[in-house]
Amino acid sequence: MLKRGRIPVFYTNMHRLHATDQAHLEDYPLAMDEVPARAEIILQALETAQLGIITAPIDQGLEPILAVHPADFLEFLQSAYAESARQPKSNRLFPDTFATRHTGRKPTTFPGLKGYYAFDPYSPILAGTWDAAYWSAQCALAAAAAVRAGEKVAYALCRPPGHHTAADLYGGYCYLNNAAITARYLQNNTASSGQRAAIAILDIDYHHGNGTQAIFYSDPSVLFCSLHADPDNEYPYYWGRADERGEGAGAGCNQNWPLPPGVDDTTYLAALGEAVATIRAFAPHYLLVSAGFDIFAGDPVGGFILTTAGIHQTGLQIAALDVPTVIIQEGGYLQEHLGENAVAFLQAFL
Amino acid sequence: MLKRGRIPVFYTNMHRLHATDQAHLEDYPLAMDEVPARAEIILQALETAQLGIITAPIDQGLEPILAVHPADFLEFLQSAYAESARQPKSNRLFPDTFATRHTGRKPTTFPGLKGYYAFDPYSPILAGTWDAAYWSAQCALAAAAAVRAGEKVAYALCRPPGHHTAADLYGGYCYLNNAAITARYLQNNTASSGQRAAIAILDIDYHHGNGTQAIFYSDPSVLFCSLHADPDNEYPYYWGRADERGEGAGAGCNQNWPLPPGVDDTTYLAALGEAVATIRAFAPHYLLVSAGFDIFAGDPVGGFILTTAGIHQTGLQIAALDVPTVIIQEGGYLQEHLGENAVAFLQAFL
Repeated sequence: MLKRGRIPVFYTNMHRLHATDQAHLEDYPLAMDEVPARAEIILQALETAQLGIITAPIDQGLEPILAVHPADFLEFLQSAYAESARQPKSNRLFPDTFATRHTGRKPTTFPGLKGYYAFDPYSPILAGTWDAAYWSAQCALAAAAAVRAGEKVAYALCRPPGHHTAADLYGGYCYLNNAAITARYLQNNTASSGQRAAIAILDIDYHHGNGTQAIFYSDPSVLFCSLHADPDNEYPYYWGRADERGEGAGAGCNQNWPLPPGVDDTTYLAALGEAVATIRAFAPHYLLVSAGFDIFAGDPVGGFILTTAGIHQTGLQIAALDVPTVIIQEGGYLQEHLGENAVAFLQAFL
Repeated sequence: MLKRGRIPVFYTNMHRLHATDQAHLEDYPLAMDEVPARAEIILQALETAQLGIITAPIDQGLEPILAVHPADFLEFLQSAYAESARQPKSNRLFPDTFATRHTGRKPTTFPGLKGYYAFDPYSPILAGTWDAAYWSAQCALAAAAAVRAGEKVAYALCRPPGHHTAADLYGGYCYLNNAAITARYLQNNTASSGQRAAIAILDIDYHHGNGTQAIFYSDPSVLFCSLHADPDNEYPYYWGRADERGEGAGAGCNQNWPLPPGVDDTTYLAALGEAVATIRAFAPHYLLVSAGFDIFAGDPVGGFILTTAGIHQTGLQIAALDVPTVIIQEGGYLQEHLGENAVAFLQAFL
């Protein structure tokens, strides 16, 4: 159970296998923001603040991942590095030709599959990427298991992140959708009078959680709420508008708050208040927070100007929902303040 | 009229505005094969062989281009360079996030439109790219006008190439589909008892002409035949299979000959024989040849091993169709032999 003043934190150093700070890439830019140091910095800050009980995740296998991602997609991620090493040309690590609107066939061989499963070239598959992504998902599952066992809150220090990946389409530094995997895990392991347990996912990363949105878009058992930079200005461009409200049985269970550049604490918290009210009305069994700290002022990929105090307030508003909560690390790239911001956010849940 | 031993050739030095050999690109590789030298080399070879009557194209305006490409796409191409210069981030010249299978909305602003209109990052839009592409299309139109006026054959020394671009989706070094623009021009300017004039387009570039295929896929008035590297192995991956035969009214008017790596003169000419027979049976008013010389042995992007003699034979087989023919330059990147191969191909039409 929760020790006074501490939060269960799940972390593994397997994330280092996704060694984006060491890859030699002849043909492509490798000014990667999503680097191992991010997770190390957060871990260090939590230890210094004595905020977390840090535990390595156990291995819950592929099954919870298969509840979200099809087997062919996982096989691709697992084999892509070895396959790319067999390719004669350069640009091995990144897809370059994409299966876009001009509808083409699903390729049967690796050169085409690279650009079939990805929607951008920002998620390089390195030698250890599959293992890092797998264990990132296991961190999320471990945090979910802790909350299911009675913890009020648990934090999955996930790296790489996950919210841009749909069922079989990855991008934006993501590979497996940790939040979606967590949601399905909780539903599949929670008795709830014949129906799926109601889950709310709140995505506060600077970028829209297009992958998570897609996975649950027609699912009424999962409410997806996202605050993010307006896709008219920012990645991922094709999703994240206010009129995307879900479809079919899931209509009404998706809500986006696209925000303009330069949003400050006040504006952000006002929008957050609306999202929190929406979640309260949904009355979920569990709340998952896709937490990105790229909403902080000065983040290299972000355009909001939240302060650390504002991030703490964000946490307080969410914690006031008083729902069993799994916090899942997504983005946040300003290393100088990443630890401080993670601590400020998590402290709100004590 | 055709002067004995010479072919009307349409060329403009406007292609140099697409200065792919001078672009400074911070974040992206710029080992571009599609460089101004290609057109200069072919031009020089034609002049040395005294093979062509070289004429600059007149300006036939946007209307023939609009017969293929929608206005919003053209506006994007025209404005993309200036728009990208206003963007704060790097990677200005290349799209990076693509509107793929996970169906998203058409963006309304430039950052998203970049990856909406393109299917790969291989067609940089430089300051002079629109002008070069526009005048490349005008070369094709000029060659078409010459053939319409009675010439047996005319050659459009087009650069940049065009066959990968569909109606509003560009890539693969292409921007405007010169062959498609030519086909519609000929149809719109040829009286043919109430029906569209029958056009056959034969694409012998190493890569599948996916853009041309897409534009005419449901159109029975245009037969599209392509010999190319099997998309299981090569770009453009999603199109070019043998079972892509057209759709709707156009069913049966599309045929692909995907070929394995290492194809030599004999194998290529055998496949070509089938394509030529198909075209003969179609009985077109005009034949357009999308001519790529990347089928030559040693081409940096190609995997076939045709010889110059084989390329000449290719020309002879096509010329034997004895149909008014517009030859449109597409790919071919081995500069040391580009001129010789262009001459060998065109000489077959004398």
